[in-house]
Amino acid sequence: MNGGQKQDFFVFLPPMLRTATCGELRIADVNKEVTLCGWVQKSRDLGGMTFIDLRDRYGITQLTFNPEWDKDLAQKAGSIGREFVLQVKGTVIERSSKNKNNLTGEIEIKVKEFTVLNAAITPPFTIEDETDGGEELRMKYRYLDLRRNIVRKNLELRHRLAIETRNYLEKQNFLEVETPVLIKSTPEGARDYVVPSRLHQGSFYALPQSPQTFKQLLMVSGFDRYYQIVKCFRDEDLRADRQPEFTQIDCEMSFVEQEDILNMFEGLVKHLFKTVKNVDIPKMPHMTYADAMKLYGNDKPDTRFEMKFVELNNVVKGKEFKVFNDAGLVVGICAKGAAEYTRKQLDELTEFVKRPQIGATGLVYARYNSDGTIKSSVDKFYGEEDLKKWAAAFSAQPGDLMLLLAGSADKTRKALSELRLEMGTRLGLRDKDKFSCLWVVDFPLLEWNEGDTNLLESLRGRWVAKHHPFTSPKPEDIKLLSSAPGEVRANAYDLVINGVEIGGGSIRIHDKKLQALMFKTLGFTDEEAQNQFGFLMNAFEFGAPPHGGIAFGFDRLCSLFGGADSIRDFIAFPKNNAAKDMMIESPSPISEEQLKELGIKF
Amino acid sequence: MNGGQKQDFFVFLPPMLRTATCGELRIADVNKEVTLCGWVQKSRDLGGMTFIDLRDRYGITQLTFNPEWDKDLAQKAGSIGREFVLQVKGTVIERSSKNKNNLTGEIEIKVKEFTVLNAAITPPFTIEDETDGGEELRMKYRYLDLRRNIVRKNLELRHRLAIETRNYLEKQNFLEVETPVLIKSTPEGARDYVVPSRLHQGSFYALPQSPQTFKQLLMVSGFDRYYQIVKCFRDEDLRADRQPEFTQIDCEMSFVEQEDILNMFEGLVKHLFKTVKNVDIPKMPHMTYADAMKLYGNDKPDTRFEMKFVELNNVVKGKEFKVFNDAGLVVGICAKGAAEYTRKQLDELTEFVKRPQIGATGLVYARYNSDGTIKSSVDKFYGEEDLKKWAAAFSAQPGDLMLLLAGSADKTRKALSELRLEMGTRLGLRDKDKFSCLWVVDFPLLEWNEGDTNLLESLRGRWVAKHHPFTSPKPEDIKLLSSAPGEVRANAYDLVINGVEIGGGSIRIHDKKLQALMFKTLGFTDEEAQNQFGFLMNAFEFGAPPHGGIAFGFDRLCSLFGGADSIRDFIAFPKNNAAKDMMIESPSPISEEQLKELGIKF
Repeated sequence: MNGGQKQDFFVFLPPMLRTATCGELRIADVNKEVTLCGWVQKSRDLGGMTFIDLRDRYGITQLTFNPEWDKDLAQKAGSIGREFVLQVKGTVIERSSKNKNNLTGEIEIKVKEFTVLNAAITPPFTIEDETDGGEELRMKYRYLDLRRNIVRKNLELRHRLAIETRNYLEKQNFLEVETPVLIKSTPEGARDYVVPSRLHQGSFYALPQSPQTFKQLLMVSGFDRYYQIVKCFRDEDLRADRQPEFTQIDCEMSFVEQEDILNMFEGLVKHLFKTVKNVDIPKMPHMTYADAMKLYGNDKPDTRFEMKFVELNNVVKGKEFKVFNDAGLVVGICAKGAAEYTRKQLDELTEFVKRPQIGATGLVYARYNSDGTIKSSVDKFYGEEDLKKWAAAFSAQPGDLMLLLAGSADKTRKALSELRLEMGTRLGLRDKDKFSCLWVVDFPLLEWNEGDTNLLESLRGRWVAKHHPFTSPKPEDIKLLSSAPGEVRANAYDLVINGVEIGGGSIRIHDKKLQALMFKTLGFTDEEAQNQFGFLMNAFEFGAPPHGGIAFGFDRLCSLFGGADSIRDFIAFPKNNAAKDMMIESPSPISEEQLKELGIKF
Repeated sequence: MNGGQKQDFFVFLPPMLRTATCGELRIADVNKEVTLCGWVQKSRDLGGMTFIDLRDRYGITQLTFNPEWDKDLAQKAGSIGREFVLQVKGTVIERSSKNKNNLTGEIEIKVKEFTVLNAAITPPFTIEDETDGGEELRMKYRYLDLRRNIVRKNLELRHRLAIETRNYLEKQNFLEVETPVLIKSTPEGARDYVVPSRLHQGSFYALPQSPQTFKQLLMVSGFDRYYQIVKCFRDEDLRADRQPEFTQIDCEMSFVEQEDILNMFEGLVKHLFKTVKNVDIPKMPHMTYADAMKLYGNDKPDTRFEMKFVELNNVVKGKEFKVFNDAGLVVGICAKGAAEYTRKQLDELTEFVKRPQIGATGLVYARYNSDGTIKSSVDKFYGEEDLKKWAAAFSAQPGDLMLLLAGSADKTRKALSELRLEMGTRLGLRDKDKFSCLWVVDFPLLEWNEGDTNLLESLRGRWVAKHHPFTSPKPEDIKLLSSAPGEVRANAYDLVINGVEIGGGSIRIHDKKLQALMFKTLGFTDEEAQNQFGFLMNAFEFGAPPHGGIAFGFDRLCSLFGGADSIRDFIAFPKNNAAKDMMIESPSPISEEQLKELGIKF
């Protein structure tokens, strides 16, 4: 633990129960009389002398008790346990054995008196960066988990990212406006959490999945530039690393086109990387959704490494190999320098793609050996000449490994995308300290909902909005809305960093007629559209400006900056995958009296 | 409308559909070719020439169409209606008749072409500072109401107050930490809004009335200084100017005593007044709750004016006047310079105090005339000598009016407090541009709940926490908890400005045993206490530091700074007194499918 790191936004600390924190005393403070407060990180007894590491948010300072100074006090110090809360008065002295790794490591406190402000029973796990506590225990005692330096640093990072987000947006003249949390249920997308009304029995509020309609109304109001760091809610089925409540950086601008928004928020992301991590991000490339799917099989490609898809229908078909001949798509990747992969490693990869969640039926490989020969798993069907053609298609070099999948186009691309990421990981190409950002643009406006269990059943077998129903189609594609809805492209964009969707947005519809057409395409009757979104469509009649915006997943952004995979450790009090708070034991039953007041029965 | 006021945090505006805003062009910009976007504030036709005021958030710029420049264009301009959204290209030219009240008033735009980006139907009320729209209409079309300069300025003020709050607290090393919105119902105070769980049927989340327990746990975690600008929720009965969702500046600190907290947050309030209003606030006085009740009959006294209560039992009793003789308390105020009040005015005051919500049975007055004589409404019982004694008790001067009420102590103080405020208003002593701040301290820990309909019925006829159950009693009063609970004082404090409670807080209990005693005093069984707050009491066993905090009502603070009585105009999308959002029509029924998924029947 780096005990004494002082933060740059630290300004002053007035004397309270303490005159200094545990992170600020230095050699220049020697001989000062000080009062410190904090927790006992650890206590060591060395031949009658007791050394205690006293911890607070700001650092660790060593307390020293010597029986030669005060026999009684030194004896009393022996009874102080881990995590006790102490107030200590003493003198700053120079340490004989200095610890240069700790900013307070050159001094210690010669203790004159101490008070136990609160005793502590033994914690259920160790309060260390590497703890012995399992996930469940740490969630139940989250307040102890948060004492760990490593977890607190995550939340300090989150704080810093929020500050720098505000700094940037405020300089750009964005106004932070709070939108309501108790709104109206509009179940056109994921499920809403709802709140029964006591004063209006039988009616409900809903918690917002995003402030979408409100920020659009703010544009109609002429607010011009809006932002909010805001909690949003989604009642989803159990999924790993999803939270029922999550935080967005939500933004909207008027009188803009797509390019303006991309520039503005590329600026935000660059500002965050520069100020928080001192990383310079180059101009971000734009990639169409169609290209992302074709080249990476994924609308959020990890572009820290190349390994682009190569389509091989023209190269591999027409031989005796039925699997390839029957496939809608034969597509592969070239793993640089992996020709030496053992049979065991290749079997592992085959097992990997055959897992049910990936669902490939098999994996074809071809090693381009360093001696120039090429050996494949389908040598029976493809001779050296054929394989040379493969290598040419892949631009493969001696030492490379070619991996091929075949099947229906969508499913095969999806499977190959997983394999590509797996190979990227295996080859060490996904460095957490490297950041590759891009904009994916021209998303489809609609997608066919076959059976997404996160949507209400009544929405199945229908076109649903890929982004949301307020996203503007590209003007030139509007004519396809009735004939080929799946081909309509939207003015929608995602910011992707290291294969993670960090933000997404769109240019919005600002015309009542187009909005009505969109609702019709989504299967709303006129009455349903008016009932749920009448206020917005009516607002468009009073002079709505062209507008658009974006929302960033703030929890995900924090975990990306923190180099972690899970968002949970960047949320102070997260819920588990079953949407439960294990610490406060919520959700929980409420009293009969409360149910009666709400008029609710189960 | 002051069209051209540029805000100091305005930095730069990249070219989008416009090259300039409607608030930034000046005489120095003459001859520039510009593109503006905005709304038509008004259009005037003067002898064939058309002048249009184009409005955006940043100001108003005049557009000029002259048939001598372009006949067709000038004709087309005639068809542009109020609130149309335009994009206009033209040249900045000097105006012949300048408007010095408007920062853009020296120039106008010689329009070369324009595009109607969106037409507008006629708004249901005028978009002006003084509108003809009633409250209900303005709420239904809130997005149009927000176009009014005066309403938008309120939200800009709110934004600015949030920024300055963060600036101060971050310099003081507070960390902003987001606490959860989906928590657990703990109905020991006002009613919770609850959220039925779909994944765990029959169980509920609750929306927080404040992040109280979470911020205390953050102190147990060693976060030291926490803040959050956060939405809170309270399911209250209909009350004027209350909102079901409201925003708090929520703060907590460790290793502090009451005085430290008062100093820290007095600093915050001074910082806000200085930076936002350029007002210097002097050192804030501290007044005990007992004194506030005795001197003002109110725990949030308006101290912009004196008019303190004078108790008169010793002065007025023992004459033939039964009303005074039977009264528990005779108490009055002296209204400086109001001796000339007419009979009609005095009758109005009598009617005022006899209104049911005030409930006095009558009003006794005595005029100290400028000629030195004193005439009272009870001359039958009190002679000149008696009235001289009254005057002496009041320190009244010739020209003053003495107003007396009598009855049971609590009720009479409450009524006289209302009368005092009424007199303050009538005498012009409650200037909205004057700010009088004080700390009210030493609140009672508990209060007897006779029949507050904002609490569950099961809490009636019980002691309830005046502040909340986590507030620390004064150590010297703990012994009274069982014998005289009503006399126990708390380490609790309110910040009062101009008679409004702007903030309140306390030193918290950080000892498990004391917390258990507190719950017992509040009528919790051990099991109930453990079930609802076990996580907090358990946390206290692992080394909880002494801690305390405060929460400010942010909506109320904004309205105080804005010089308004209602908080509603400082909230972008408020609800009405029946907790309804009239714009989106919420709360509203949800679908059978949603109800079925939740397993809920009515």
